Amino acid sequence: MAALLEQYRKRIRTELDRVVDFWLKFSHDQQYGGFFTCLGKDGKIFDELKYVWLQGRQVWMYCRLYRTVKRFQRPEILKAAQSGGAFLQQFARVQSPDGPGKCAFCLTRDGRPVKVQRTIFSECFYVMAMDELSRVTGDKGMLADAESMMDQLVHWVRIDSSGLGRPQLTGDAPVNSMAVPMMLLCLVDQLTEGRERLVDKYRELSDWCVKQILQHVQRDGKAILENVSPDGKELPGCQGRLQNPGHALEAGWFLLQYAKTQGDTELQKLAVEKFMDVPFLTGWDAQHGGLFYFLDVDGHCPTQLEWNMKLWWPHCEALISYLMAYSHFREPAMLGKFTQVYDYTFSHFPDEKHGEWFGYLSQQGEVVLDFKGGPFKGFFHVPRCLYMCEKMLDHLLENGDS
Amino acid sequence: MAALLEQYRKRIRTELDRVVDFWLKFSHDQQYGGFFTCLGKDGKIFDELKYVWLQGRQVWMYCRLYRTVKRFQRPEILKAAQSGGAFLQQFARVQSPDGPGKCAFCLTRDGRPVKVQRTIFSECFYVMAMDELSRVTGDKGMLADAESMMDQLVHWVRIDSSGLGRPQLTGDAPVNSMAVPMMLLCLVDQLTEGRERLVDKYRELSDWCVKQILQHVQRDGKAILENVSPDGKELPGCQGRLQNPGHALEAGWFLLQYAKTQGDTELQKLAVEKFMDVPFLTGWDAQHGGLFYFLDVDGHCPTQLEWNMKLWWPHCEALISYLMAYSHFREPAMLGKFTQVYDYTFSHFPDEKHGEWFGYLSQQGEVVLDFKGGPFKGFFHVPRCLYMCEKMLDHLLENGDS
Repeated sequence: MAALLEQYRKRIRTELDRVVDFWLKFSHDQQYGGFFTCLGKDGKIFDELKYVWLQGRQVWMYCRLYRTVKRFQRPEILKAAQSGGAFLQQFARVQSPDGPGKCAFCLTRDGRPVKVQRTIFSECFYVMAMDELSRVTGDKGMLADAESMMDQLVHWVRIDSSGLGRPQLTGDAPVNSMAVPMMLLCLVDQLTEGRERLVDKYRELSDWCVKQILQHVQRDGKAILENVSPDGKELPGCQGRLQNPGHALEAGWFLLQYAKTQGDTELQKLAVEKFMDVPFLTGWDAQHGGLFYFLDVDGHCPTQLEWNMKLWWPHCEALISYLMAYSHFREPAMLGKFTQVYDYTFSHFPDEKHGEWFGYLSQQGEVVLDFKGGPFKGFFHVPRCLYMCEKMLDHLLENGDS
Repeated sequence: MAALLEQYRKRIRTELDRVVDFWLKFSHDQQYGGFFTCLGKDGKIFDELKYVWLQGRQVWMYCRLYRTVKRFQRPEILKAAQSGGAFLQQFARVQSPDGPGKCAFCLTRDGRPVKVQRTIFSECFYVMAMDELSRVTGDKGMLADAESMMDQLVHWVRIDSSGLGRPQLTGDAPVNSMAVPMMLLCLVDQLTEGRERLVDKYRELSDWCVKQILQHVQRDGKAILENVSPDGKELPGCQGRLQNPGHALEAGWFLLQYAKTQGDTELQKLAVEKFMDVPFLTGWDAQHGGLFYFLDVDGHCPTQLEWNMKLWWPHCEALISYLMAYSHFREPAMLGKFTQVYDYTFSHFPDEKHGEWFGYLSQQGEVVLDFKGGPFKGFFHVPRCLYMCEKMLDHLLENGDS
């Protein structure tokens, strides 16, 4: 067993180094700061737009690696993160009559806003970036910036969403979309690390997030649905029947991680049984392998054109989930699932020639979009997965897993 | 040759009857009026949302068939069109502080607005529906409704777009998106039929639309690009390099039709050489057959996940284009292209079992989404193609093509 884990660790460590090298080499904008994320298979820039989600995520990931992995404590990584952070602080927020704090979704290379989404996610990744950057630089102003944006986010989600700019329409019923409590729980985890004051401040919020996430367990516990009503009922139509297995798996490790900090054994069990076992049963493609992107719980065809594609990130999240579950419970079945996802992932996504991973495969597992970074794929899911798996494998191997 | 055309006409006529039957049977909402468009492969409703584009298109298509094809002068078709028109007039427009006239993109079954797009297309299909319905009912108020919405559209496109609700962002440079002048030219064609007053009123607008469309001929005439600058220059990045072969082919027959009414032989030639020949050269999949959905003019991978899929509507538009070009110029090469697209289309899209056509195939030509109607597929491209091709074949056969 230790030999197998050692083999995984070696491959994962090598992959992480290659992926970091790829982004260090190709993504930095030396002229305007921040990062290019539209990178072809060989790293060539094919579009200069700067997506705020991906800017924030790259700052966060660089800082997390710098802060917690000795071999990544390299000045060039810190410098790039600081450049990205400065770019975000200078350009991400859009002047708006609707209120303070809204961030753009997309900027020109020199920082002019191109598009604003009427959701909270640009702001969420802004918070992640600023908080993690403040941890490596010690910049208190940056932490304050992160905390005040977090307060704004909570206001939009729980009190008044009108500042997001969505028109109030009588047919647009409120929805508990799983992404929202997931992201907030992730941010609480980020902000509270080692800070008692913030643990207290966000305790009630964490409880609320967990409850909101658990509302997505539906059909007598046999399905995780992406969208439910605010009081946890199933919604009508395609929206209500939508399943996103990779997203459920990501929620699984968010919940397990949180439950461990709380010593909540019941939640630990729920996280694994509902958010890890169920998406595997419903989402794994028995014919071609890999996790589907979207499914309809009643077996209708999803209306998303990409429903049957195999994307990199659900596989990243699955690897984290199953290795975390195995690390915690030491049940061989969980290592079995990790192995199954690992074998698919490492035989399909990494590009041996140019480094980094392809992101978008057909149902049959062929590369359909051959770029390494795009509007929604940056330096985040792949390195976060490799980083967390390496850490977990280190821990397992040091603690004599056998 | 006549035997071949007769064979095409027979198949096309049969298909049109089957497609009309499918929508008559499955799509009518007897309770609230209007049409269900989310219909599974067997016609079962899988979502009750009502998409305004598709409501307007179905009203238009029913009325056009009723008005111009003897075998479709059936009371149930007129009644359904009137029900759809009444539903649109009652519910499509959204109350808004931003100004008058904005239509929803999507409504609940009972007509409450769910979503408003910050574009002009819901309103365009509203105009098409109201004008064609006024032609079969003689309702002058409906024509006035269509004309006033048309004036609003022209105002948004050419004078002030702020009523569309898009925030003014300094990085969001103005774009000439080919869909906009195409739609306006299509509406002018609709509104002016048999009406001298409107021919005069919209003469300058038509000229403007044609010029705007021709700006999309780029790269020394070797490419049609979806998005250019307002003064006809290539735009940077993915947006600027995007090609949509089916859309270019649709623009081709819009232009040829318009050029014929104007007796403009130069424009007739341009329509065929640039908007029909070029998209075939760039867009036909030599390996698996069929037209790609999106391509990048420099050969980068498009960032649209569905770029390599084969969709029904580009093939519908290609059939219209090549048959119209052949009808006009009688060049065998155009009939050859029609035949090539016809063979692919009729061997891949129609569902022999349940009727109607599948809409979304993989690059290899397998059905990936098996529904007959969805948020973007209604009673429009398939019947419009079959209707126009039947008319053109009637004309060719009556005029002794040999």
